[in-house]
Amino acid sequence: MYALIIYDVSSNEKRYNLANYLKAKGLARIQRSAFIGRILPSTLLDVERVIPKLIDGSIDVVHVFQLYDTAIQRVKVFGKPLAEITVKHGVVVIA
Amino acid sequence: MYALIIYDVSSNEKRYNLANYLKAKGLARIQRSAFIGRILPSTLLDVERVIPKLIDGSIDVVHVFQLYDTAIQRVKVFGKPLAEITVKHGVVVIA
Repeated sequence: MYALIIYDVSSNEKRYNLANYLKAKGLARIQRSAFIGRILPSTLLDVERVIPKLIDGSIDVVHVFQLYDTAIQRVKVFGKPLAEITVKHGVVVIA
Repeated sequence: MYALIIYDVSSNEKRYNLANYLKAKGLARIQRSAFIGRILPSTLLDVERVIPKLIDGSIDVVHVFQLYDTAIQRVKVFGKPLAEITVKHGVVVIA
């Protein structure tokens, strides 16, 4: 199982804390506001409990996509990602 | 087939043009820098041809995730999305 977490968080401090938290959970940062990685269901539940505490729910937004292992048909990357990802046989490979 | 397109584009003008372009292709904006929607493979190819012209590939980054119809196990949304999405039987429903 994969999680793709994308966010739009206004406060620099909150964004910084959220990014650090997701990094600590073993997710790979592919953009300033996007993390992806294989994750245990129990860890994802933890993440979902913590996220609301790290953001301002009245202005910010976070999407947590829980994806099946072979969910991604293909990924095309343009420009300079923060971490390289490719898809092999439907599975995300993080460089 | 779905596309989830997320981007990190520095220039306001380029970001504006990219967002307008994706909107015109029928995708729904769920965050300032994230669009999702059902898309024809041929339209997605067009999009992938145009994206490099709209960004500065030396500093910006765009990820285009091509997802199977039932790729998304679950989506959790925190805060204020620009468009509401839910997942029903693996299929993304855009409100």
